[in-house]
Amino acid sequence: MICYNALSKDQLKNEIEILEVRYNAFKEQNLKLDMTRGKPCSEQLDMSMDILDIPAKDVRFAADGTDCYNYGLLDGLPEAKALFAEMLDINTTEIIIGGNSSLNLMYDAIARAMSLGIMGCAPWSKQDKVKFLCPSPGYDRHFAICELFGIEMIIVDMKQDGPDMDVVERLVAEDESIKGIWCVPKYSNPDGITYSDEVVDRFTALTPKAKDFRIFWDNAYCVHHLTEQPDELKNILSACKMAGNENMVYIFSSTSKISFPGAGVAIMAASVENINSIKKRLTIQTIGPDKINQLRHVKYFKDFEGINLHMKKHASILKPKFDIVLKILAEELGGKEIASWNKPNGGYFISLNTLDNCAKEVAKLALEAGVLLTKAGATYPYGKDPLDRNIRIAPTMPPVAELKKAIEILAISVQLVSARKLYS
Amino acid sequence: MICYNALSKDQLKNEIEILEVRYNAFKEQNLKLDMTRGKPCSEQLDMSMDILDIPAKDVRFAADGTDCYNYGLLDGLPEAKALFAEMLDINTTEIIIGGNSSLNLMYDAIARAMSLGIMGCAPWSKQDKVKFLCPSPGYDRHFAICELFGIEMIIVDMKQDGPDMDVVERLVAEDESIKGIWCVPKYSNPDGITYSDEVVDRFTALTPKAKDFRIFWDNAYCVHHLTEQPDELKNILSACKMAGNENMVYIFSSTSKISFPGAGVAIMAASVENINSIKKRLTIQTIGPDKINQLRHVKYFKDFEGINLHMKKHASILKPKFDIVLKILAEELGGKEIASWNKPNGGYFISLNTLDNCAKEVAKLALEAGVLLTKAGATYPYGKDPLDRNIRIAPTMPPVAELKKAIEILAISVQLVSARKLYS
Repeated sequence: MICYNALSKDQLKNEIEILEVRYNAFKEQNLKLDMTRGKPCSEQLDMSMDILDIPAKDVRFAADGTDCYNYGLLDGLPEAKALFAEMLDINTTEIIIGGNSSLNLMYDAIARAMSLGIMGCAPWSKQDKVKFLCPSPGYDRHFAICELFGIEMIIVDMKQDGPDMDVVERLVAEDESIKGIWCVPKYSNPDGITYSDEVVDRFTALTPKAKDFRIFWDNAYCVHHLTEQPDELKNILSACKMAGNENMVYIFSSTSKISFPGAGVAIMAASVENINSIKKRLTIQTIGPDKINQLRHVKYFKDFEGINLHMKKHASILKPKFDIVLKILAEELGGKEIASWNKPNGGYFISLNTLDNCAKEVAKLALEAGVLLTKAGATYPYGKDPLDRNIRIAPTMPPVAELKKAIEILAISVQLVSARKLYS
Repeated sequence: MICYNALSKDQLKNEIEILEVRYNAFKEQNLKLDMTRGKPCSEQLDMSMDILDIPAKDVRFAADGTDCYNYGLLDGLPEAKALFAEMLDINTTEIIIGGNSSLNLMYDAIARAMSLGIMGCAPWSKQDKVKFLCPSPGYDRHFAICELFGIEMIIVDMKQDGPDMDVVERLVAEDESIKGIWCVPKYSNPDGITYSDEVVDRFTALTPKAKDFRIFWDNAYCVHHLTEQPDELKNILSACKMAGNENMVYIFSSTSKISFPGAGVAIMAASVENINSIKKRLTIQTIGPDKINQLRHVKYFKDFEGINLHMKKHASILKPKFDIVLKILAEELGGKEIASWNKPNGGYFISLNTLDNCAKEVAKLALEAGVLLTKAGATYPYGKDPLDRNIRIAPTMPPVAELKKAIEILAISVQLVSARKLYS
């Protein structure tokens, strides 16, 4: 492999010609490969079918006698709380089991803060300005919530062990209008990195000027390991308690990528004071979540060990897909110094950075050859990647054969755009 | 039966003594009868168990090939839309299939209006004042949403064929801060009355001063008939279209009392313009509802006829309960001119009005004899019944034997409180 920068004009021209031949060969296949979203593949969903075949009579009564077919239990079934409290390593008093969508729980948390305020503070909508810190690249749906509510988003760079905490510490300490920060702390979306203990500790020690500042800790991939040496994430709620800052964090999770996306169980966790304050409002919003589905999940997984065993099966399907992507990226792009990417130990994404000002052009080229990628820029607030270089690769959904082609096309597009740029 | 007003002091005293003997006999039984909520009883829920036993493989793929186990379809499955559009007699373009709670859909509609505004109008939170008309007695959970968001509630009297439309017409036409009205138009909660065609027509012809005024039409009991001669409710969305006012109404419904309370399917219906405007925001809130549960419902009920057949089974359980309540009320209170009540053809409640300023005392007496009633006043905004006379009877949940005792205690309490009042 030769670094592209070391190539002469002639060598670059030659390289471009070779790449164009390869690119056009793909183009002629009239492919249509969708790489846009982090969705589980069909085989992963097959694995969860048994959850739905638990007999109706077995999902009727909870251990405490609650009739799950009827109204009641605003914050979830006791046994569901127990299961997911174990998964998140928190107490059962620190959890709310919600409906089918953790995104919806996050949206609701922000919507409540906007209209009603947090723990006695003025509603955000009545405050002059509301801002969120957005470690980027990050999850587009987080940013979309802020955009909808007119919350100003401030980009914070992602480093190899989490957000740039120097910036986070300074900004939250000096600006009262900063009310939150979005985090995907484990196998982050899209970088696939896990926040280091030091980063978690620095989070717990934040001294936000705003009393109603909350860390939105979207632990979406807490058990979504790909290897036998999974990353460890320090428990932020415990650490916040130790630091005397226990009300500062809202934790979210779900079984969307454990059982069924859109038909799983969503979870919110926080200090008892936060949870109680939220429940007072939640009781106006709904009579309660779908307890039958909660009980189905409990009966199927039984305990945290059951969840982990199930996740191993997911990994056995996903690991080869991640490996193929990484292999092709290494073969095609390695050593050329035109792209960098992470090798995650879990999660749903591989994050690829091209040379500056190339990502959009790469996505355009890939699309013209039939590969639909997550919109370039989507991993940044307002859909604008300031360096136009980040591309989120979602390897989970497509079959392996399609994935190979798609990543080869992507890699060729990266080379082509880079070579042309250097040549011009 | 003798009208209590016609009794002499001695006769009243005698009556009180007889009632006290009966009352104390119940009291000594140390009963604990919960009549608070409109929940289906266990036998009703038994009827729906087969919905949950539909094999997992049969609820995977929708007719259009959608994998219901995966993400997608923000506004619901096409076949679920078709089923519930038929139930509500609207078009499939006029419907959103939500999660498990129509209350949550109503809450969300108001929360969105507060934070984001309706169709280009300023968010309600940015407007000076927001008021809702609240036909009363009404549903306490509707009023609780207004109270949470600081929306001022104005009581409108309920008549035998719906709200007092003279008042509704005048107020919405003259006050721009009036943004909505709560309606349970069929088998209303708690009165059990159905709005007449004339009332529906007058709704469609409203000329609200506020452009962002919406009728919140909670059609919770649309198919919840108790008799073979069900009430007919005029289709408000069609009528609004005819009147050129199609954006004025939000319709809500659910299968909470068709299949499972808390694990059914919730529905919102409105004009295409309203629906599209809502979907633009809904896509930020969630990736989509539980499609598996939707498909389960579709596979089980098949069509509107299937829903109606199922509701006949509900009626066969509920009708005897309503009959017992009405029989005891007639026997105990008939002709005494101390109470009045409706005889609903459907729904979940019987609404009892005592003499003025007696309801709280009746509820207190009943509670002391072991009968927990819906809090007196709960059927009015802020929990304050200005005449302190309305008591909501929820006959569905308790077994017949318990129900009989509870209503007898209630009726004795009404007589006792009335007689004491007239005696003093």
